[in-house]
Amino acid sequence: MALRRVAIDTHHENVAYLHRDCAIYRAEGFKALAKVEVRANGKRILAVLNVSSDPRIVQCHELGLSQDAFERLGVEKGHPVTVSQAEPPESIPALFRKIEGERLGREDFLAIVRDIAAHRYSKIELTAFVVACNRAELDREEVYFLTEAMVATGRRLDWHAPLVVDKHCIGGIPGNRTSMLVVPIVAAAGLVFPKTSSRAITSPAGTADTMEVMARVELPFDELTAIVQQHKACLAWGGTADLSPADDVLISVERPLSIDSPGQMVASILSKKIAAGATHLVLDIPIGPTAKVRSMPEAQRLRRLFEYVAQRLHLSLDVVITDGRQPIGQGIGPVLEARDVMRVLENDPLAPNDLRQKSLRLAGRLIECNPDVRGGDGFTIARDILDSGRALAQMNALIEAQGSRHFDHHHPPLGKLHFDVLAPADGVVIGIDNLQIARIARLAGAPKVPSAGVDLFHKLGDTVQAGQPLYRVYADFPADLEFARQATQRSTAFALGDASQMPHVFVEF
Amino acid sequence: MALRRVAIDTHHENVAYLHRDCAIYRAEGFKALAKVEVRANGKRILAVLNVSSDPRIVQCHELGLSQDAFERLGVEKGHPVTVSQAEPPESIPALFRKIEGERLGREDFLAIVRDIAAHRYSKIELTAFVVACNRAELDREEVYFLTEAMVATGRRLDWHAPLVVDKHCIGGIPGNRTSMLVVPIVAAAGLVFPKTSSRAITSPAGTADTMEVMARVELPFDELTAIVQQHKACLAWGGTADLSPADDVLISVERPLSIDSPGQMVASILSKKIAAGATHLVLDIPIGPTAKVRSMPEAQRLRRLFEYVAQRLHLSLDVVITDGRQPIGQGIGPVLEARDVMRVLENDPLAPNDLRQKSLRLAGRLIECNPDVRGGDGFTIARDILDSGRALAQMNALIEAQGSRHFDHHHPPLGKLHFDVLAPADGVVIGIDNLQIARIARLAGAPKVPSAGVDLFHKLGDTVQAGQPLYRVYADFPADLEFARQATQRSTAFALGDASQMPHVFVEF
Repeated sequence: MALRRVAIDTHHENVAYLHRDCAIYRAEGFKALAKVEVRANGKRILAVLNVSSDPRIVQCHELGLSQDAFERLGVEKGHPVTVSQAEPPESIPALFRKIEGERLGREDFLAIVRDIAAHRYSKIELTAFVVACNRAELDREEVYFLTEAMVATGRRLDWHAPLVVDKHCIGGIPGNRTSMLVVPIVAAAGLVFPKTSSRAITSPAGTADTMEVMARVELPFDELTAIVQQHKACLAWGGTADLSPADDVLISVERPLSIDSPGQMVASILSKKIAAGATHLVLDIPIGPTAKVRSMPEAQRLRRLFEYVAQRLHLSLDVVITDGRQPIGQGIGPVLEARDVMRVLENDPLAPNDLRQKSLRLAGRLIECNPDVRGGDGFTIARDILDSGRALAQMNALIEAQGSRHFDHHHPPLGKLHFDVLAPADGVVIGIDNLQIARIARLAGAPKVPSAGVDLFHKLGDTVQAGQPLYRVYADFPADLEFARQATQRSTAFALGDASQMPHVFVEF
Repeated sequence: MALRRVAIDTHHENVAYLHRDCAIYRAEGFKALAKVEVRANGKRILAVLNVSSDPRIVQCHELGLSQDAFERLGVEKGHPVTVSQAEPPESIPALFRKIEGERLGREDFLAIVRDIAAHRYSKIELTAFVVACNRAELDREEVYFLTEAMVATGRRLDWHAPLVVDKHCIGGIPGNRTSMLVVPIVAAAGLVFPKTSSRAITSPAGTADTMEVMARVELPFDELTAIVQQHKACLAWGGTADLSPADDVLISVERPLSIDSPGQMVASILSKKIAAGATHLVLDIPIGPTAKVRSMPEAQRLRRLFEYVAQRLHLSLDVVITDGRQPIGQGIGPVLEARDVMRVLENDPLAPNDLRQKSLRLAGRLIECNPDVRGGDGFTIARDILDSGRALAQMNALIEAQGSRHFDHHHPPLGKLHFDVLAPADGVVIGIDNLQIARIARLAGAPKVPSAGVDLFHKLGDTVQAGQPLYRVYADFPADLEFARQATQRSTAFALGDASQMPHVFVEF
């Protein structure tokens, strides 16, 4: 049969298209949604079968492949291909055992993750794996096996340095753009810090989205390594590096199911960091009433799981539990967060102090990974680097190296439309709902529209008067503005009351 | 936008196609695989989005729908449609709670099953539900809620008779075509027996496939009811009657995952039977080393779950645990099984006695549902009906009423190709592997090729000599024959040994 590229984007799933009247479809007794194996030129991929009766999509002598599947097979259009009923992926018996609740071993996880990374699992099989591994279904040894398998089935970077640092936050706190400050500070202190980040999945901005306001972040792998060699750091999107590819596939089903279990979180984060070549990692776990982690016991359980797996994989890990009661910084959305970051780097009096303080503390922890630095000195070193302008110089060097987009944070290109949300009464701000603020910023268009978002004028503990603006919502499109406005009318995300009603947290910083 | 029918069969999943350059795709920030709501003419369906850049599939001003989705929306081509980000199905919070391991209540199951039956769940959500309900995750009260919801969301037939009988086997035993004997016997005894069956899912023949050798089985609903009114019975395919539609959707993900947990089996079987209007059900649970149920304690647990749910739903249920050590009858595959059935009905000396005896016992149980029949008399009444030819007359009447296909069982149209599998040594048959025999028959082409299958010449306890044929494999296509031959070379499915090694089961019959 002749290969045809069917220009349909089916996301991560390989789909093959056969015409209903094609001889092989009839002879082999394929069924729609059955899995088939497509071979050409010594290569093979598995795909889910869709059957068509429209010759404009696929003709009788042709086999069509969806976009991604076509790229994966990697032969040109019209090339002869053969197609047959797929043998199920090798790891399916292990998957079935997990569905039945069995504990799996190292080889099982390796086989499953290898099949997932090679896109041999259908969406049904992927979902079954994710749900079967949810909740208390994975013990910590299994989380270690899963993490190890996720590292083993992708590329693993080697920076030829004894000390390669990284930082990560488990997420859920809008505006929490500390990486963009920690990286230039710590790199200026001489440590190797090749930071690769994801784009926002469910939040209004990821580090990659925010950095992209100022510089290119989709760097070919060779360029990325050259930048790290010259500048000791980068702030790039991690998608091009093929790190823990199974993670990206798993996320495609975890996200629509809102699954974010401890085991899966640990495997996802640590596999990416180890594959990226980190030897030392500082991990930020924020806690608060609307954070991902809501109580100290829960944070401690999560910390122990991270520490167990990190230790088995020889990664030096420092977990810090931080204040997640409210957003960090002032702006939420790529452009607004880039503005905040640059204000901190320039020691601008308008810079949000919480973002500055948290970044300095995290940077201090990482600086202390250097055996020549005395415990406790890290924070001071970090502050000197920031105050002296060396962190700004390091950031500007990274922006130039990655490809500057000439962002002027004194005149940030904010959304053309905006409205303010006003305090309904006098009072003290006693709560800011992270989830609702994030939702409003996303409805306004962030991160897809970088200039959209929320600019906070008040934070926890501030005294406000009725009619004073609490925050401003920016958008570029009238429909987005209207969606965001409706959301603020359902809930402003701000709770006002008496200062004594403020929630307390007892955290490191 | 204008509606377009995209001639792609995506099985049970609704798929919508948008062009990559279409204004709404860009403005709304849809992602491939996101769920969208399509509205036209006051109707609405949910669909998963695929993005295309080929105007031959979908143009910028068009919205494409896959075949089934197009039918479900039910408006003509070119009709204006609107499309928007879908609100998640109402029951998604309940699904998430089940994924987290919570026990759900009646309203939760009703909401979930309603969304499933209306095709509002994506494949990911469906799989998550099935896996989260697998194993011991459903208690018996939840199985009852699930069953009740599955009945409530489809059509429920009412035969206006005080006594409507049915029978079902949980499956797994090749050749076990008792329904086609029990129905004519019991209907000839005067009971109403509207039997609807499924086609084979994983087996070499279902009752619908086998009956189809002799008569039409895809009957419009009105015709089906007319036949039952006139003849008290039918032997039809159940797919047209919209009974427990959620079950069909669930099976589409359970099958590729080989999930067949007790809770799901009970809900699937009982919902179909209750929806079909049965008041009395005899349920056959075969046990044996290669049957679905392998031990008596397991069979008893399953029996209790069936009984609990049936009683809550006011269905009178009689569970019989039967000998599942080997196939029933001689032939396996639609034509071969139809031949066996007709031989029993005609009291042919070649008729397989195990099929006759088992059918008479099951029929006897059902005949005793009639309050005028004394307990213990059922078997004798059944035997009289069979021996006198009244069962054959009833079957011929049903065949005529449904539309005869003029099957001549004295000259059954068997596969053009065949080979015999020979005994490798002298010995007694001490084991026949149900799973392997079914696999061989399916590889030979059954049920898609009705004339294909396996004809058994020996059963458990028979003494055979080296070189004697154990069974014959029939196929219509050389490739099929070759696949089946390779399977027999890996394992013949027959174990030979000493009579003392035969496995024993202690069952009702």
